[in-house]
Amino acid sequence: MPEFFTVLPPAEALAKLLAHLPAAPQPETVATAEALDRVTFEALRAPASLPAFPRSMMDGYAVRAQDTFGASAALPAYLTLAGEVPMGRAPAFEIRPAHAALVHTGGMLPPGADAVVMIEVTQTARPGEIEILKAVAPGENILKTGEDVAEGAEIFPAGHWLRAQDLGGLSALGVTRLRAARRPRVALLATGDEVVPPDVEAGPGQVRDVNSYAVAAQIVRAGGLPVRCGIAPDNFESLKRLAADALADADMLVLSAGSSVSVRDMTAEVVQGLGPPGILAHGVAVKPGKPTILAAANGKPVIGLPGNPVSAMVIADLFVVPTVHHLLGCAHPPQRQFVRARLTHNVPSQAGRVDYVPARLVERDGETWAEPVFGKSNQIFTLVFADGMLVIPSDANGISAGEIVTLRMF
Amino acid sequence: MPEFFTVLPPAEALAKLLAHLPAAPQPETVATAEALDRVTFEALRAPASLPAFPRSMMDGYAVRAQDTFGASAALPAYLTLAGEVPMGRAPAFEIRPAHAALVHTGGMLPPGADAVVMIEVTQTARPGEIEILKAVAPGENILKTGEDVAEGAEIFPAGHWLRAQDLGGLSALGVTRLRAARRPRVALLATGDEVVPPDVEAGPGQVRDVNSYAVAAQIVRAGGLPVRCGIAPDNFESLKRLAADALADADMLVLSAGSSVSVRDMTAEVVQGLGPPGILAHGVAVKPGKPTILAAANGKPVIGLPGNPVSAMVIADLFVVPTVHHLLGCAHPPQRQFVRARLTHNVPSQAGRVDYVPARLVERDGETWAEPVFGKSNQIFTLVFADGMLVIPSDANGISAGEIVTLRMF
Repeated sequence: MPEFFTVLPPAEALAKLLAHLPAAPQPETVATAEALDRVTFEALRAPASLPAFPRSMMDGYAVRAQDTFGASAALPAYLTLAGEVPMGRAPAFEIRPAHAALVHTGGMLPPGADAVVMIEVTQTARPGEIEILKAVAPGENILKTGEDVAEGAEIFPAGHWLRAQDLGGLSALGVTRLRAARRPRVALLATGDEVVPPDVEAGPGQVRDVNSYAVAAQIVRAGGLPVRCGIAPDNFESLKRLAADALADADMLVLSAGSSVSVRDMTAEVVQGLGPPGILAHGVAVKPGKPTILAAANGKPVIGLPGNPVSAMVIADLFVVPTVHHLLGCAHPPQRQFVRARLTHNVPSQAGRVDYVPARLVERDGETWAEPVFGKSNQIFTLVFADGMLVIPSDANGISAGEIVTLRMF
Repeated sequence: MPEFFTVLPPAEALAKLLAHLPAAPQPETVATAEALDRVTFEALRAPASLPAFPRSMMDGYAVRAQDTFGASAALPAYLTLAGEVPMGRAPAFEIRPAHAALVHTGGMLPPGADAVVMIEVTQTARPGEIEILKAVAPGENILKTGEDVAEGAEIFPAGHWLRAQDLGGLSALGVTRLRAARRPRVALLATGDEVVPPDVEAGPGQVRDVNSYAVAAQIVRAGGLPVRCGIAPDNFESLKRLAADALADADMLVLSAGSSVSVRDMTAEVVQGLGPPGILAHGVAVKPGKPTILAAANGKPVIGLPGNPVSAMVIADLFVVPTVHHLLGCAHPPQRQFVRARLTHNVPSQAGRVDYVPARLVERDGETWAEPVFGKSNQIFTLVFADGMLVIPSDANGISAGEIVTLRMF
């Protein structure tokens, strides 16, 4: 069996790959209403102050605060009713000394007013006159111009992953389109004479393509655009041509390599020939997933996943997902959920490599337990029947039943 | 100010709403390749065993295990080479006693063979003969028929939220289409004479519609299909007609109510008139978000959100999201991430209600701190500048600086 020429810890291998890639996302204009889970291409600043005018936060009376000073239930302040502020329009009057105007929540404060008295602490003395039973301070019960966000303030840095409230904030500012980082096109090429597409009846000795679908979904989650490029036969020239074509049309290439040694060697040779600098890491200290290839070809990432589906998904999570984030320019992508639980069984592992073990959460005696789903790295259903992955660090020699572990949820 | 006729704890209010809704999702056929984040309509069983034939997990020699018993480096077993298993086809030969066949990882085991000897513990003695240096047990280094999943086994229950590996497992089984729960259509109707669409220049006294965009994105995340129905004026007949039309074309209606008391009362009256049983809860013990309306009209949920964007998003998260999951028939939707951090400032709250306070995570002296983003419930940017929500339970009277809190991440 040929030696892997480097077997790197996963973090080091990833850093080596990313160091060879330009973090230069391309812009693309998208509608704000469709921008959930997109990433900002550039920093965005508020084009205007929000609110654009002082607004009442209460149903009540807009007043000059000083006119209420000293007012109490025993000694109310009496103010003259100047009118009612219409919703959605500027009031046609101003508040002069000893005057007040009826205003609804969200209504615009008339010029001259600097506070709102809640309706609950007022009474109508006689038509056209209001009794104020409690003093207000200037600014009380109002939202000042720019108090939500000031004109010119940076609202997002470049590389910000857009969430629901961010679309709300942009809508409030009238920003209905923005420049997002274009989704990286990630070409997916499966290999193997034994692999057939899922819609084909698999004959004896044949298996259906799993990785082009499972990894595609991981790429979608990461913000990328998967492009399935089919299945290459175990033939050097065909693989070389298909890989080069796939990479030419994409920002990144992910090969799901055949799993036999001879095919893995062929994949490595093809990857090495795609362009400089070529292979940066061949073999990572991860189980499952050791025979991973990380490469760059003329500034584009090329990742060779192991053929076994569990290994392929573990490695895609470790390397493909952060590479897509890197291409998007996104430094703080959404985080996966971690759950702490008590381990039900001993889990062996080997020091010097990071072990990933699928596990499911079970409730037992009111406590949450993590139950390993033991299996082989070509059993995709070990992942289907699991809730997350137990990550055993490289300095550990297994974990004992009863210990508290952290499950990285899917 | 009119009294809320019930002010329920949020969990109780939600249970009351869901109890009035049928959990009867509708089926829709979708391509497996497009089914990420969809929910299964029905339980799915494996249509075939996986793998469909015994496969080698190693590069090596397919053997009858008993022919290797007692073999060691000092005393090898000598086997006759019967041939090489082609990838993707059934071998044209069987393994007779004292015979072996070269097999690659993933190759089909020839009839007669019941184990694989890794190539690393073999030698070629002379052409056509293999030395086995280590015994194997029956079943060693092979994946048996059905070992990944057995024909007929339930692979997902109804209401299962489909993840990347699930699409992989379905692809492996040749299931390229499946019946998913149809995404519930959630009509969103904003109200308020002062509200204008985001693409309109907001004049004095006008504000742009935030909730129809922020809540729409929350609905997308929850697996629903938001349908923006525009902005209703503060006019009973118009609101009644627009709400009835919106609900007629949808599975659920979310009103983003005007925030003045008179408009809230009008909204409640409109909701009550949409159909029986009408309003189930008016007012929940949550801050922000107290003036919430939960109703059912002829089996369809109707939720009246407060008009202030922060309140609207908190209430949508508490009621709209789980209602969408309920309509999808999904009992175990993806969970939000929780992060434990030390609180930077005292946060006041009032016993008897659940308080939601936006907070951001900051690193300080190597520790993670949660810094509250104080603001008013109409400041959408308090959410934009936050990473998650601090949830203060109803039995607490605030939280002191320095305490460890759990932040519910966005």
